Amino acid sequence: MATIDKPKVKVNGTDYGWPRKPVVVVCIDGGDPAYFDHGVKHGYIPNVERFMKNGFSAVADGTVPSVTCTNNMSIITGAPASVHGISGNFYLDPATGEAVVMTGPELLRGETIFAQFARAGARIAAVTAKDKLRRQLGKGLDISRGNICFSSEHADKVNKAEHGIDNALDFVGMPLPDMYSMELSLFVLEAGIRILKRDRPDILYLSLTDYIQHKYAPGEADAIEFYRKIDDCFGRLAELGAIVALTADHGMNDKSNAEGKPNVVWLQDILDAEFGKNDTKVICPITDHFIAHHGALGGFVRVYCRGGKATPDAIMRLIEPIPGITEIYDRHTVCEKFDLPLDREGDVAVISAKNVCVGGAEKEHDLSGLEGHRLRTHGGVTEARVPFVISEPISAAYREKVKSKPLNSYQIFDFAINGTR
Amino acid sequence: MATIDKPKVKVNGTDYGWPRKPVVVVCIDGGDPAYFDHGVKHGYIPNVERFMKNGFSAVADGTVPSVTCTNNMSIITGAPASVHGISGNFYLDPATGEAVVMTGPELLRGETIFAQFARAGARIAAVTAKDKLRRQLGKGLDISRGNICFSSEHADKVNKAEHGIDNALDFVGMPLPDMYSMELSLFVLEAGIRILKRDRPDILYLSLTDYIQHKYAPGEADAIEFYRKIDDCFGRLAELGAIVALTADHGMNDKSNAEGKPNVVWLQDILDAEFGKNDTKVICPITDHFIAHHGALGGFVRVYCRGGKATPDAIMRLIEPIPGITEIYDRHTVCEKFDLPLDREGDVAVISAKNVCVGGAEKEHDLSGLEGHRLRTHGGVTEARVPFVISEPISAAYREKVKSKPLNSYQIFDFAINGTR
Repeated sequence: MATIDKPKVKVNGTDYGWPRKPVVVVCIDGGDPAYFDHGVKHGYIPNVERFMKNGFSAVADGTVPSVTCTNNMSIITGAPASVHGISGNFYLDPATGEAVVMTGPELLRGETIFAQFARAGARIAAVTAKDKLRRQLGKGLDISRGNICFSSEHADKVNKAEHGIDNALDFVGMPLPDMYSMELSLFVLEAGIRILKRDRPDILYLSLTDYIQHKYAPGEADAIEFYRKIDDCFGRLAELGAIVALTADHGMNDKSNAEGKPNVVWLQDILDAEFGKNDTKVICPITDHFIAHHGALGGFVRVYCRGGKATPDAIMRLIEPIPGITEIYDRHTVCEKFDLPLDREGDVAVISAKNVCVGGAEKEHDLSGLEGHRLRTHGGVTEARVPFVISEPISAAYREKVKSKPLNSYQIFDFAINGTR
Repeated sequence: MATIDKPKVKVNGTDYGWPRKPVVVVCIDGGDPAYFDHGVKHGYIPNVERFMKNGFSAVADGTVPSVTCTNNMSIITGAPASVHGISGNFYLDPATGEAVVMTGPELLRGETIFAQFARAGARIAAVTAKDKLRRQLGKGLDISRGNICFSSEHADKVNKAEHGIDNALDFVGMPLPDMYSMELSLFVLEAGIRILKRDRPDILYLSLTDYIQHKYAPGEADAIEFYRKIDDCFGRLAELGAIVALTADHGMNDKSNAEGKPNVVWLQDILDAEFGKNDTKVICPITDHFIAHHGALGGFVRVYCRGGKATPDAIMRLIEPIPGITEIYDRHTVCEKFDLPLDREGDVAVISAKNVCVGGAEKEHDLSGLEGHRLRTHGGVTEARVPFVISEPISAAYREKVKSKPLNSYQIFDFAINGTR
């Protein structure tokens, strides 16, 4: 009749112990390692610097395609996309043939770390900048048991029954932030600090937006200001007694030429010229409703054979010589290489170089949102390296893990919960 | 631009290779190892005997409580109940306080081996005797892609769109079997043989019913006839070129006394006498709509504290001296010990001895369905040991696995798919 207080929690094949104190994971949207590098070098992110020195720091592999939904889901399920099924922000639904956003909770497979911990009695809070992530973050999470899940984008529309919180604007003490502002992220962090202080949840997940990183390179004034402010928030979270773990959904690269114009391979136009209209369909998995950021241009696209003319092999032969294209795969190979779900893959996957992006038809991409800024975007392999920083030291066993196998960003909860004991 | 033909498939943390030939897993409902032992000893299951000799044979641990839904879900998810969430046939819904069957697909967590393989392009067929299992077996399985999922119980009501098959009675060449008959299982096996012949699916799952095992002990004429017939089917499946793997959801024990009357601890009556009516609620997780089998009496019950009087500790102290009760646990301990989901656990778990069963209030259990037969039932730890037989030899690595760790019946797909290469 012995009593065991704190159960282990299994999520998609990984066992998690019970957090010995609150664990806060922050996903810095678009938080390329170059921003931390610059901040540390110039001394404006002292808290991150201290975590790196006293705790653990590495650069990890994110999930490819390196886009927001895919990597947030990898982080909160502790698993690759072959398990959770969210292989982009946007995909071609094979049942209807329609291209749709991939944000429906019914598309998310397996279980989230939040839902499984909540079922075992843990208290969970998840705050995201982008409301598009909210329903998947909250999948299976019983809000009636004191858990919280809301977005800063819709912080004016929350209620206790659906989001676990009332009057979020008053609670956080900030006005509703603009969709395109650094405040959209800062609101998430301030909300997290207040929730941590009031509720001391076992697990807190804070997912930011990459508005700043799309617009400003490391070292530009606005980027410095943003990183100074988020670093201050990280310090306050640690001060409150939490283990703070920092990662990113993806990095960010400048994909413009010397004249400041985007380096784009307009793949749909190339395919249409060869195979005719409507024979193939290019899907850009970076597409979401925050298109001012990037005009739906990224480093990874999927091509679907829809007519009878183009075969995967013919497409691959056509694309191979195009400058700026670095990797081309058939559907089986891309799934095997990047651990993606086969039933949500196209016929050919196309990946571009660090300074190049790939799109559909030129006339379908609206780049007016760039407002004269250089195009900085992500999605490819060159934006899949992300920071992996934990405020406390990790155990010898976890240090060994890193030596023997590549580190994936979706291991951040494993390291922050199991690795710090 | 290399091509990889057959992807690996990840399900709840286990990687499965592509089946090199059709893999058939048969879950012999109530197939206690004693039936195989008797059959081998007396020579009436020659195919099983050959599998054991030329392939692999062990006795594995099933999931506790040893009931049908729980173990079928463990087998088809390759995971314990803490992962898939189905910790009984029947449970107390914490949201409503109502006791309900646990057969809804929305209650099943994680992913099934069938759904994940189908997404990767495999062809799947699952046939079950009991329709109650069908919707969970088919969860996430796209029937429109040539997959099949139906029950022999409702074989007269199938259609292509919903079950992947039309006119199942004609196809199998048998009339609709009675719910309480050995034909309900034989129909499943005959359907499997015909599907294997016609479609050669990559994975075939055949789940039987325990009508015979509840009624007849090993060596009784009807049990011998049943095992002779199913053995013949196993041989025909192997003959068609499949890897045949045999396990059971649970075993079966005689729980009657010398006079042939059931040995029952009427736990609700004992609790009511001590704490008063409605203060506690006993839930028998074996309960399903096949109650003639067992009158909802089994070897494992959950007690819920509902009034203010009974505490878990007081219940445990009260129950401990009762003869025939062998294990009593609080909710955390039982979940840790048997790998169960905490949010679906009661306050106290009670497990009875091999020859004893435990029920609720005497007047609520209908034993008329026994029709004078001795009560043979399951649910406890003593019915959680099951056969684990594979028709082909397993690799050295898999033989090593068995030496170093206890074998779980939910590893049967892992062994049949990955272990036989």
